[in-house]
Amino acid sequence: MRALLCDNGLRYAPTYPDPRPAPGEALIRVRLAGLCSTDRELVAGYMGFRGVLGHEFVGEVVEADDPTWLGQRVVGDINAACYRCETCLAGRHTHCPHRTTLGIFGRDGAFAEYLTLPLPNLYRVPPAVPDERAVFTEPLAAACEILEQVAIRPTDRVIVVGDGRLGLLAAAVLRLTGADLHLVGRHPEKLAIARGWGIATHEGADGLPERRADVVVECTGRPAGFELARRLVRPAGVLVLKSTYHGDVTINLASLVVDEITLVGSRCGPFAAALRLLEAGLVDPTPLIAARYGLADGEAAFDLAFHRGALKVLLEL
Amino acid sequence: MRALLCDNGLRYAPTYPDPRPAPGEALIRVRLAGLCSTDRELVAGYMGFRGVLGHEFVGEVVEADDPTWLGQRVVGDINAACYRCETCLAGRHTHCPHRTTLGIFGRDGAFAEYLTLPLPNLYRVPPAVPDERAVFTEPLAAACEILEQVAIRPTDRVIVVGDGRLGLLAAAVLRLTGADLHLVGRHPEKLAIARGWGIATHEGADGLPERRADVVVECTGRPAGFELARRLVRPAGVLVLKSTYHGDVTINLASLVVDEITLVGSRCGPFAAALRLLEAGLVDPTPLIAARYGLADGEAAFDLAFHRGALKVLLEL
Repeated sequence: MRALLCDNGLRYAPTYPDPRPAPGEALIRVRLAGLCSTDRELVAGYMGFRGVLGHEFVGEVVEADDPTWLGQRVVGDINAACYRCETCLAGRHTHCPHRTTLGIFGRDGAFAEYLTLPLPNLYRVPPAVPDERAVFTEPLAAACEILEQVAIRPTDRVIVVGDGRLGLLAAAVLRLTGADLHLVGRHPEKLAIARGWGIATHEGADGLPERRADVVVECTGRPAGFELARRLVRPAGVLVLKSTYHGDVTINLASLVVDEITLVGSRCGPFAAALRLLEAGLVDPTPLIAARYGLADGEAAFDLAFHRGALKVLLEL
Repeated sequence: MRALLCDNGLRYAPTYPDPRPAPGEALIRVRLAGLCSTDRELVAGYMGFRGVLGHEFVGEVVEADDPTWLGQRVVGDINAACYRCETCLAGRHTHCPHRTTLGIFGRDGAFAEYLTLPLPNLYRVPPAVPDERAVFTEPLAAACEILEQVAIRPTDRVIVVGDGRLGLLAAAVLRLTGADLHLVGRHPEKLAIARGWGIATHEGADGLPERRADVVVECTGRPAGFELARRLVRPAGVLVLKSTYHGDVTINLASLVVDEITLVGSRCGPFAAALRLLEAGLVDPTPLIAARYGLADGEAAFDLAFHRGALKVLLEL
């Protein structure tokens, strides 16, 4: 099959071996896949990953032990857990210490004609959700994870820092709480998308009062973004870390104690909830789509997404 | 009056001016006061504080606008707030940006014959609670703050790191949750106190499994203590920061995101709850008392508490 590999850099392979599903796994033909910043980091060496990239996808089941899955249009939780250990049995399978992760760790990913995932990882896509929305299920679930972890009230003042892919999807979900929501970014054209959803936006943090927000969601992945988020959150407030950082960040822990700040690390989230939001039309991610490429044009797709700062770049299989 | 001052180091003053209560404040004759690590940090220059040290006390009201307070034996919340601003009206007066703090910031403290505090800060001590227990109300309230911020379940595995004053009081409170509680420390004689309360103790962390505790409470205030706590907490677990750190600490924020760790800064707590625990005998802090000194022997008291590592040193007025 055709595949886009992380192999000491990015490499297109026209004849990569087809994957074979293990017992309990489905073979899925990929229809559409999305590029994520993690893909860029993997290409740069993160996790030491070698193999097929890609973890955001929508596809169709072509092989499965359970025939009711055959032909189903699906999205898939990227963490393939053992479903047997203490962590899995406590309901935290996304933290299974034995997990592989689609296109990230120990498992070939979605930038290819076929992929495999365990059946418990699959979610049927409702007919009302077209492929170009369904492909956002994974990052939208990650945005929903914020509300899985933090109780946000309609009277809260909430600020999202960062107007990239993740910041916009976080804002799109947090908007549904009725909270007094603000998005801080640096790109007028990206902030305009949020304004289209009715969200108050700010180019730079000038004019936003310091130490006043009940909840701040950090989506920049840069130390400067963390420092801004720390200045904006009120004493006894919550600072959600939604993106990963390169290297270590130096923090004044004493000030976290004195101000009783809660830092919440937040990663993968609930797929079923994300699909409900897409089906109900409560979140429309399509304004984020910048371009669609074929798999053989993977280099151009990466260039647009990560060097020219486009929002969501999709790969068509 | 006699007073123990932070004045470019520690200094005993036999003739310091008596304080005068402002409108709405009470004048309190101090009966017994306790030394806290914050006192050592203040003497070393923290907060740039100059004035009477001390914020743990039990005393007697000798002057107040409201005569029902006269003669009452009281303890006092150390944060003197404005009780008018947005923060106070939201119920977070311990974070009032206009606050002064007894013996720490902008307000003379308890290592003196008299102190003043606003009436809303005072709590009557029940007759069943003698002075040598009541003097622990402030640090015990700080321990209770953990449960004010984090819901700890009887089925949780909880580890307190640090067997100093705060670590022991935190363990004494967390023991009441019924959780599977462990205290990690370095001092056999301090760990023995916790064992006397029925708490499982560990001299060093050898044998404690990594990444398994639902909640870890860091009470050492040292970067090495933070690193140990980080190793012990499970993915999606909670790490409570209970003590302040000198300087900045370098943290891998990406690992907090990947493991979805929640960091909770925790400071001052609920006095009324602490008094209830003392009155009911559910917490008996008296095994922590190492020695009692007169105010004129403040230097010897500080030496015992902070150079020879004793637990709680009390000052008798």
